[in-house]
Amino acid sequence: MTLRPRQAPIIDALPVTVPFVGPEAQERARGRPFRARIGANESSFGPAPYVIARMQEAARDQWMYCDPERYELRTAIAQHLSVGYENVVVGEGIDGLLGLVARLFVAPGDTVVTSLGAYPTFNFHVDGSGGRLLKVAYRNDREDLEGLLEAVRRENAVMVYLSNPDNPMGTWWEADEIMRFADALPETTMFVLDEAYGETAPASALPRIDIDRPNLIRMRTFSKAYGLAGIRCGYAIGEKESIAAFEKVRNHYGTSRMAQIAGLAALADQAYLAEVKRRVAAGRQRLAAIARDNGLSPIESATNFVTMGCGGDGALALKVMQNLLDRDVFIRKPMAPVLDRCIRVSVGLDHELDIFAQELPKAVADARASS
Amino acid sequence: MTLRPRQAPIIDALPVTVPFVGPEAQERARGRPFRARIGANESSFGPAPYVIARMQEAARDQWMYCDPERYELRTAIAQHLSVGYENVVVGEGIDGLLGLVARLFVAPGDTVVTSLGAYPTFNFHVDGSGGRLLKVAYRNDREDLEGLLEAVRRENAVMVYLSNPDNPMGTWWEADEIMRFADALPETTMFVLDEAYGETAPASALPRIDIDRPNLIRMRTFSKAYGLAGIRCGYAIGEKESIAAFEKVRNHYGTSRMAQIAGLAALADQAYLAEVKRRVAAGRQRLAAIARDNGLSPIESATNFVTMGCGGDGALALKVMQNLLDRDVFIRKPMAPVLDRCIRVSVGLDHELDIFAQELPKAVADARASS
Repeated sequence: MTLRPRQAPIIDALPVTVPFVGPEAQERARGRPFRARIGANESSFGPAPYVIARMQEAARDQWMYCDPERYELRTAIAQHLSVGYENVVVGEGIDGLLGLVARLFVAPGDTVVTSLGAYPTFNFHVDGSGGRLLKVAYRNDREDLEGLLEAVRRENAVMVYLSNPDNPMGTWWEADEIMRFADALPETTMFVLDEAYGETAPASALPRIDIDRPNLIRMRTFSKAYGLAGIRCGYAIGEKESIAAFEKVRNHYGTSRMAQIAGLAALADQAYLAEVKRRVAAGRQRLAAIARDNGLSPIESATNFVTMGCGGDGALALKVMQNLLDRDVFIRKPMAPVLDRCIRVSVGLDHELDIFAQELPKAVADARASS
Repeated sequence: MTLRPRQAPIIDALPVTVPFVGPEAQERARGRPFRARIGANESSFGPAPYVIARMQEAARDQWMYCDPERYELRTAIAQHLSVGYENVVVGEGIDGLLGLVARLFVAPGDTVVTSLGAYPTFNFHVDGSGGRLLKVAYRNDREDLEGLLEAVRRENAVMVYLSNPDNPMGTWWEADEIMRFADALPETTMFVLDEAYGETAPASALPRIDIDRPNLIRMRTFSKAYGLAGIRCGYAIGEKESIAAFEKVRNHYGTSRMAQIAGLAALADQAYLAEVKRRVAAGRQRLAAIARDNGLSPIESATNFVTMGCGGDGALALKVMQNLLDRDVFIRKPMAPVLDRCIRVSVGLDHELDIFAQELPKAVADARASS
């Protein structure tokens, strides 16, 4: 047997995996494209025309490395949020920042608390740091703040993850409840608050920015309401020493020049964002109506998607999803117990929701018939 | 004192740092832009017009996440190199891939061998994995293959890094010498061969691609000759199990949709690459001539830059660089002993080299006068 380099022990124990299979892989396997791409909580409305124009102008400048300090974008975000430059770190989407936060604050064997069925990419990164994940069940389709807190205390967890609004359920907690949770946490437990869907949430769900709390890091992104999922640009907000720690391990040239330009332009066009928010709210209402028309149970959502119970168990919902995929409608669904009774559908363009409305009745009927 | 989350022990020991200060930061500090940007080994020739056009078209599609499998680009690279799909991993530039390779194969306390004065970002990532760096001095301005091998054996190193052609000196080893080095390494030592400048090197410097060797990972990039430093796209080539390991920790959606499109387009335009290679070769000759005209000693280069001795010690070369910066010419210089007698100048557009030719005499004269 050939000898080979040994993988680091933490790595050696991990599987080779892709946390999310992309729609492109499904299209390759199917041999044909989807007609409606409403499964990945992308924004079919796209980025603002101004953002597109800036990216087009910037195409010829991509021979230059990016500014590793992300100075302009970081400054603009800080001004937008009325916090200091030192309270913001820009990264390769929230995924990239979650990878870094796990490396910074999770040592091998440390316990990290999250919800059962919450964002798998966070779990992937905790695994990569050798952390031990403890998963708390949702309660009434919301992340269970009391249960999370209890688990943190009982297990002496170094970190707890919460998305608010929540993915995959679309539910949310009001700001005062989030801050009561934060106040109750041990000061040594890092609270990672993922606000990827913050822009589409009611203002009352977003706590005032508090940059004096060393154990709170909030994450936001240009991937969702700003319509830039493909460009990889997100940011984290927090107390300055916690934010400075990212400099120890981040890929300094990792947020591309294009991403920084796109993010800066996106932030500058708040009128477009307001328009997208209106369209997302209308799309949610329409998705909920389509769901109800088909006997499904839509869950009220603060995100750019609607999760809907199919009126049966996980097997039934899986069939509904599969039937939609077979009819060229790309959607996804939660897989954890109880949540798995649902499918999850992103707000899309009108013609995409038309296709969904057209295909859902057959998808549901066929699923019920074969159950 | 406020309690706060503890950083993981490896991280806690690290400084907050930026391995390379970018020219943008210098411009901010100076309060004015550089007239010639010939310090970061970027390609002033830019990407191919076809690549720019593809990026411009793709700007409006950036609302979609990228394909996490990077399927099309990975397939195209594999075909380009006549290797299997499973032998290629695409990442966020070589920097991103170096970060991953360090995480995969370096455990805390492991020894990693590199050259004293070689790529600091590699060292940064090894530090981030808790590795112990052992640095071998250059020999005659080349990385010292015998010295590196001896250090690997003596210290039982898990990894050795070599860039060929070399940055910051521009020198290179022929392929047969590289492979003799590879053959002599313990099979358990991972050889990371950074070929960022492979496209501008003589073909004789690039070993035949050998994807059967579990302890060899070669890295290439679209940042240099392809003119896409800002877009963050590089790749690694190796034996399939070593390549598969990247899936365990990489940020699957990290290589942006734009980067994948740009890389694919760049690879398709080999005629443009050939033209860039001609222009780089001509630029190197011109830089060498300018150096000699000023009593400097250019080192023969296989890269897109020329490193040149200033005829004195590190302090003199530092003054030359500073004088050039003061005259709005962005260059860099090696800092390690012996190498530090040099400045390093990237091939740029004709008008940038004109500026360099115009400012170098005064920069050198002033440096000598003040020594």
